[in-house]
Amino acid sequence: MANIRDLAKMAGVSVTTVSRVLNHHPYVSEEKKKAVLEAIKATNYHKNINAVHLSKGKTKLIGVVLPFSDHPYFALLLKGIAKQALENNYKLVLFQTDYMESREMEALQMLEQKQIDALIICSRSCGLSIIKEHLQFGPIILCENMKGHQISSTFVNHYKIFFDALMYLYQKGHKTIGYCIGRKSGANSWNRDRAYRDFLKKYGLPYYPEYVFDQCFHFEDGEKVIDQIKKMDKPPSALLVTSDQVAAGIVICCQKHQIAIPGEIAIIGFDNEPISRMMNITTVEIPLVEMGENLFRQAVSGEISNHEISVKLIERGTV
Amino acid sequence: MANIRDLAKMAGVSVTTVSRVLNHHPYVSEEKKKAVLEAIKATNYHKNINAVHLSKGKTKLIGVVLPFSDHPYFALLLKGIAKQALENNYKLVLFQTDYMESREMEALQMLEQKQIDALIICSRSCGLSIIKEHLQFGPIILCENMKGHQISSTFVNHYKIFFDALMYLYQKGHKTIGYCIGRKSGANSWNRDRAYRDFLKKYGLPYYPEYVFDQCFHFEDGEKVIDQIKKMDKPPSALLVTSDQVAAGIVICCQKHQIAIPGEIAIIGFDNEPISRMMNITTVEIPLVEMGENLFRQAVSGEISNHEISVKLIERGTV
Repeated sequence: MANIRDLAKMAGVSVTTVSRVLNHHPYVSEEKKKAVLEAIKATNYHKNINAVHLSKGKTKLIGVVLPFSDHPYFALLLKGIAKQALENNYKLVLFQTDYMESREMEALQMLEQKQIDALIICSRSCGLSIIKEHLQFGPIILCENMKGHQISSTFVNHYKIFFDALMYLYQKGHKTIGYCIGRKSGANSWNRDRAYRDFLKKYGLPYYPEYVFDQCFHFEDGEKVIDQIKKMDKPPSALLVTSDQVAAGIVICCQKHQIAIPGEIAIIGFDNEPISRMMNITTVEIPLVEMGENLFRQAVSGEISNHEISVKLIERGTV
Repeated sequence: MANIRDLAKMAGVSVTTVSRVLNHHPYVSEEKKKAVLEAIKATNYHKNINAVHLSKGKTKLIGVVLPFSDHPYFALLLKGIAKQALENNYKLVLFQTDYMESREMEALQMLEQKQIDALIICSRSCGLSIIKEHLQFGPIILCENMKGHQISSTFVNHYKIFFDALMYLYQKGHKTIGYCIGRKSGANSWNRDRAYRDFLKKYGLPYYPEYVFDQCFHFEDGEKVIDQIKKMDKPPSALLVTSDQVAAGIVICCQKHQIAIPGEIAIIGFDNEPISRMMNITTVEIPLVEMGENLFRQAVSGEISNHEISVKLIERGTV
């Protein structure tokens, strides 16, 4: 493959002149420009963008870490990030991690090696200290409250959302409330657990570990929840389900087993995905696409900021 | 930032020696190695991987073009691609196109500029001639039958699948069959249309344009289909729905409007997503994750190949 020196030799001009023509700079005579363009044509020369990145120190690539790309929660965040990336002429490098820390490390290493300009971490397994060590290499944006940590973030207040939703159910007469989450670890799950325990304490209600259902990610996981509930002597009368997909799966399963909603069990979903509207599921609306757009803006801004996104309860037919 | 020349100067060795140390080559004396490692430490030097790419001509990045990342069909293809990328130590660059040709062009330009090693196009708007022009810059893999075109592909036989499913419905007594697709344009849609018309011709059945529902991508699009069907004097007695998500949306809507399935309308979905199993929807199983894995393997193999993936009808309760 021809390089810039070959072009200069062929066109009988300096390397600087070739560079000027390639980068559309002014102050090149028409004659020299013509000679360079002919050399480019003759050698079928293509600018190697890695050389441009090397000289400019920017790749226009933003890394995105997410555990699963086939889960609507992350797919909607990704949609928002991708929308802004497109408008701002950036590309995305995707790291699908399955919550494996080694895969998160690969993303952080790409930031270190300047293969990406910034990194958005939608959900993580690695410790905060590892994130902090890598901040020197470029912006890292998280999806959890990072106020006071000198790390940018876009987040919802999981503690308050959970507490408010539990209060709403309590005011509707529910005293035995369970909840479904993805994983038990992680900052967001920890805040939800804290809200749940504080709620129980406030009303002097007992904590039943079997009322906490984890590994609830997908529609089909609703089946597992109902299978477990059917075996209980004292099943919960209401469930907070941190994904509309899982909530929809639970509703379908209850129909199958003729369990009345909200009569026998009340359900609150999360996200306000279209499936919740169509299935008339009460849900907490989280503007995921908007959150994704904000994550992108923070990734390219270069300034540290923390944005709390507000949510709202959409009352429908499952409570 | 220190570069390799600074390191050489500081360590009192040649640039070649620094390079050998950085790339773990043998034949460097322990003394010189130590001096270089100390200079690296002192300058907090980090290898700029763009320089490595420039010298090796490989980025270990594979581009993936898809119209939407928040649609289960593409999310499952992406899952398979990402799974193999991880196992083979590649990263993915995502191009979410909304079927805009300009965005597909950006992906092709990244291949041309050597920012990615290969490009997987899950669905496209651009013409085949544009794809062919870019094959000189690296492998491009498509999700449609490319036999005889010198382009690698992993695909299902949309003509045969559609024809077989129509025959199945016909044998169950259906003579007025409609179908739901994403977009009317595109090679796959064109093959389905051909199968539909050939089926009608075979049995001397009339073609009703209102029986073809396009823009059916998501769960919520099922509502639109049922709204239109309810207004028809002569509604179809069966629907082929090229997405389980849309099929599930149709089933939920029929429940709401007390339209009996399969009594008043029979439904065949596509993909065999978990939602179809849980909602007992008859569907055509398409192994999307496996297809994604195969697309990746073709992207890195460097050889042109065409793989037809077989599908099967899963009989459940909606026909």
